[in-house]
Amino acid sequence: MKIDGQPFRTIWEKADEPGVIQIIDQRHLPHQLMIENLRRLSDFAKAIKDMHVRGAPLIGATAAYGLYSAMLEAPADKRRLPKYIRKAADTLLQTRPTAVNLAYAIRYSLQKIDTQADLEGKTAAALQAARDITEESVEHCRLIGQHGLPLIEAISKRKNGAPVNILTHCNAGWIACIDHGTATAPIYAAHDAGIPVHVWVDETRPRNQGARITAFELLQHGVPHTVIADNTGGHLMQHGQVDLAIVGSDRTTRQGDVANKIGTYLKALAAKDNGVPFYVALPSSTFDFEVVDGVLEIPIEERSADEVRYIQGMRNGKVFKVLLTPVDSPAANYAFDVTPARLVSGLITERGICEATEDSIARMFPEFSLPKTA
Amino acid sequence: MKIDGQPFRTIWEKADEPGVIQIIDQRHLPHQLMIENLRRLSDFAKAIKDMHVRGAPLIGATAAYGLYSAMLEAPADKRRLPKYIRKAADTLLQTRPTAVNLAYAIRYSLQKIDTQADLEGKTAAALQAARDITEESVEHCRLIGQHGLPLIEAISKRKNGAPVNILTHCNAGWIACIDHGTATAPIYAAHDAGIPVHVWVDETRPRNQGARITAFELLQHGVPHTVIADNTGGHLMQHGQVDLAIVGSDRTTRQGDVANKIGTYLKALAAKDNGVPFYVALPSSTFDFEVVDGVLEIPIEERSADEVRYIQGMRNGKVFKVLLTPVDSPAANYAFDVTPARLVSGLITERGICEATEDSIARMFPEFSLPKTA
Repeated sequence: MKIDGQPFRTIWEKADEPGVIQIIDQRHLPHQLMIENLRRLSDFAKAIKDMHVRGAPLIGATAAYGLYSAMLEAPADKRRLPKYIRKAADTLLQTRPTAVNLAYAIRYSLQKIDTQADLEGKTAAALQAARDITEESVEHCRLIGQHGLPLIEAISKRKNGAPVNILTHCNAGWIACIDHGTATAPIYAAHDAGIPVHVWVDETRPRNQGARITAFELLQHGVPHTVIADNTGGHLMQHGQVDLAIVGSDRTTRQGDVANKIGTYLKALAAKDNGVPFYVALPSSTFDFEVVDGVLEIPIEERSADEVRYIQGMRNGKVFKVLLTPVDSPAANYAFDVTPARLVSGLITERGICEATEDSIARMFPEFSLPKTA
Repeated sequence: MKIDGQPFRTIWEKADEPGVIQIIDQRHLPHQLMIENLRRLSDFAKAIKDMHVRGAPLIGATAAYGLYSAMLEAPADKRRLPKYIRKAADTLLQTRPTAVNLAYAIRYSLQKIDTQADLEGKTAAALQAARDITEESVEHCRLIGQHGLPLIEAISKRKNGAPVNILTHCNAGWIACIDHGTATAPIYAAHDAGIPVHVWVDETRPRNQGARITAFELLQHGVPHTVIADNTGGHLMQHGQVDLAIVGSDRTTRQGDVANKIGTYLKALAAKDNGVPFYVALPSSTFDFEVVDGVLEIPIEERSADEVRYIQGMRNGKVFKVLLTPVDSPAANYAFDVTPARLVSGLITERGICEATEDSIARMFPEFSLPKTA
């Protein structure tokens, strides 16, 4: 999508320096647009772990390019190679334990690398794998936009063209992906098709990915939006000010439970209580068919308490963190929650919209099917 | 309650300077404990308007002391006195036009002043009125604590003395009152009775009264607590980490709907979904028997968007605001939401606990009763 009128992606190969990958370092958004060069495995691991990049699809692509980067520095000694590759993969896998796309990307890359006998072939395969993952992600997001568009069109018609009010949580936008985004893809598709939309942007504490990143990308692309505190969505839904909620997913279980940014569950409850359609937009790579009951089974990442105790903002053109709590008050920081499938109106995937049920998901993605759960 | 081991209230008469009233200037909490001397009417009006003091009970007491302060500077000319008093009352009334307790306190003080003929008598009556309002508020909060305590005791017994985890939203603590608080009163009562409790403190964006003030007062009184982002409560409830939720109320309708800080409704939904008891603690002064359906009838104050766009914190010992959103992104700031009575387990009042139903409330407060709604 666009920044300052220019088409952008979140990760790309540096044109004039082979082997160097460039990313938008998202930690400085929305106040500064910083492009970072990633040159070696440790750069990639740090970029994922410290959230220079974030969002399931982008983490996957970054990890795949990270494995390619590791291959560029691989030992010539063929006997040491399998262990080296395994170690590089593990380094990347350990950066964000909840991200299923990360594991998927690493697995895909390792399979491609495995098909080649020599180092040169393996390195080329790793690069191709990263490109595959990147392009597939862009195409999946584009398709999610196309499949979600009719939902917005229908509401727009019902409202005789008055702006369709869409609430989203966190950033499941193009900056969390490579392009288009997941939750934002139908919004951009509608906006670009001339359908008036307005987006309620949950600021999404503690890291404020909504206020910082979703607001930034909607603003840059020219989509009308309003930032709200995470506490606000229920009130808006009670008063008919939300026509549709669309969020992303970090991990989706075979019965359609959705692990997403902490607070998603609260918005889903409010949507249910007020008859507001609540959709989850996701590429199929976020499905985890090993997991049935997301609330019981998905481990939730706990991050540093300082993400709650401090917040980053800008003053006098400088970006820094300020302390919000008493110095001696502890804080807890659960990064995700799980929205049970019963609260989800539908899943918008690259193949179309399915219900958040095991049967409906299995019909749309039969190749993933395991024996049905009891 | 205690600060640095010393018993404190939020407003008191300065011991060595008659006529001078002292308050905690809450704008600087939790980073700085600033005591402010209020000497004349304009000091009181400014303290209320600019939120040096906040919370319905405290606003009422401050206004009553403000009227006493005005009486100390009243003109000797008896003919000018009625107009002077009326003007002083209006000045105070206009500071926070929607605060019900403010109007109540002024009305009560004016009635007391009216019973006396001369200036000396009227001044003494104004002081007595301020003391009455203050002591009544303290006593109501103390009683709320006593009535709420058995709820916590019962859970503590069920858990064999393991800490009772209580979630609260915003600051309905002693710093919003004179002492004890409303939502916090049962918590302090339990803690002081030696029952192990632990409080999940919603930070409460956008003004962060939880992270700033509730955390401060729990910390100072020695109550174990953890600050969390407002998004977190649902996840904690899904995983059995909340035994009880207690919040305050800004306005309670005759059928038991509760207007409270924005986001309260979302926590009530999560409590309902997970079978967590959700109680509202309130002095009866927050009942508004003119209102039946809170969602439909209560107008919700919209405050400055800059409270969402900026946040106050501390860095290098200095307290200031930083910008969170893109400079050009708009924001909306609804200050309250309404939690429907069906989500409320009970109302903890100074007379005891009643159900959030018209019948149960009318039985506990028969003197307020209007003809029953259809």
